[in-house]
Amino acid sequence: MSPGGDVRVAVLLSGRGSNFLALHQAMSRGEVPARIVVVVTDKPKAAGAAKAEDLGIPAVAVSRRGLTREQHEERILEALRRHRAEWVCLAGYMRLLSPLFVAAFPQRILNIHPSLLPAFPGLDAQRQAWDHGTSVSGCTVHLVDEGLDSGPIVVQRPVPVTADDDPDSLAARILTEEHQAYPEALKRLLTTSWEVEGRRLKFFEERA
Amino acid sequence: MSPGGDVRVAVLLSGRGSNFLALHQAMSRGEVPARIVVVVTDKPKAAGAAKAEDLGIPAVAVSRRGLTREQHEERILEALRRHRAEWVCLAGYMRLLSPLFVAAFPQRILNIHPSLLPAFPGLDAQRQAWDHGTSVSGCTVHLVDEGLDSGPIVVQRPVPVTADDDPDSLAARILTEEHQAYPEALKRLLTTSWEVEGRRLKFFEERA
Repeated sequence: MSPGGDVRVAVLLSGRGSNFLALHQAMSRGEVPARIVVVVTDKPKAAGAAKAEDLGIPAVAVSRRGLTREQHEERILEALRRHRAEWVCLAGYMRLLSPLFVAAFPQRILNIHPSLLPAFPGLDAQRQAWDHGTSVSGCTVHLVDEGLDSGPIVVQRPVPVTADDDPDSLAARILTEEHQAYPEALKRLLTTSWEVEGRRLKFFEERA
Repeated sequence: MSPGGDVRVAVLLSGRGSNFLALHQAMSRGEVPARIVVVVTDKPKAAGAAKAEDLGIPAVAVSRRGLTREQHEERILEALRRHRAEWVCLAGYMRLLSPLFVAAFPQRILNIHPSLLPAFPGLDAQRQAWDHGTSVSGCTVHLVDEGLDSGPIVVQRPVPVTADDDPDSLAARILTEEHQAYPEALKRLLTTSWEVEGRRLKFFEERA
């Protein structure tokens, strides 16, 4: 499916894993020079983990039960090392990563968030946007730092809020854009030269 | 130019008045059932005031010099009463209005802001967005309440930030959208039924 030179990506998820599938499909179509080598979940029953196994991708469940945050993250890092992951994509992973975890993959962890950050960080962003009465929301793919939804932005896509929307219909429309934005962002980071300047990502010419 | 039944609008500005001109032009084309009856500026040399006079629209300069905030606002309110203004559009008016002023035109004051609020309120919003590294910004037309750029949102338009942008080129691209958004928002408020619910504007069917 993917040539051996592709970048090795781990996906962390807690739920249905629709962004995991969107990434996988874009990679399978050859649009992103990467492949998913392991899916890790903190919820043993996450639907996304079952989908990974259906696709022949190793799925590792690391329950939080009885573990400190450090112990839990260390077990996840062990799984990532075992599968030689080079990048980490969070796809509906519902916990903040510790500074130690972030430092293990410096500027190599991506997250996707269902709003145009810095507006509406945190949980239930689509409802936050709807309650606020915005007429444009969207999604953001960003590098993960130690803050909440605060790292440098890679890609954003706007999504209109219509008069007959409710938070659920808005969330569904944003999700469709997320599935485009996440592969686009990963591709951009893997195929161009870039650096972080202040809190901006600065892109240079395409790599040869 | 405009029929007598049109809504009487006052424009407050401190600078070149490009959004004032955009509103005026949309009204002249019959796209917004309103007309500008007076332009008020706190900067006697504002280019927008000269443009108003060129168009035959009364321009009133109310300098802040030697006046308290209350005295200054009271003089502006006198001018609005004298010209029987029903709505107030802020178009680059660089001061926060007091609660007393806002209460004189309840839900009848509009402002335009060069970002997708609630992101980047306050001064120099285009540079704030650029410094933050966003890849989508835009503009917002909102009803004015007592906060800074905080009232209910009427219209927002997204604007992409491109790799070769700087704050000035971004500001210019946003300004083009402002000139569309402001007449659109005023038209919407004057030609539909609406109410403020929480902090959302809720629109009903078109008026007959």
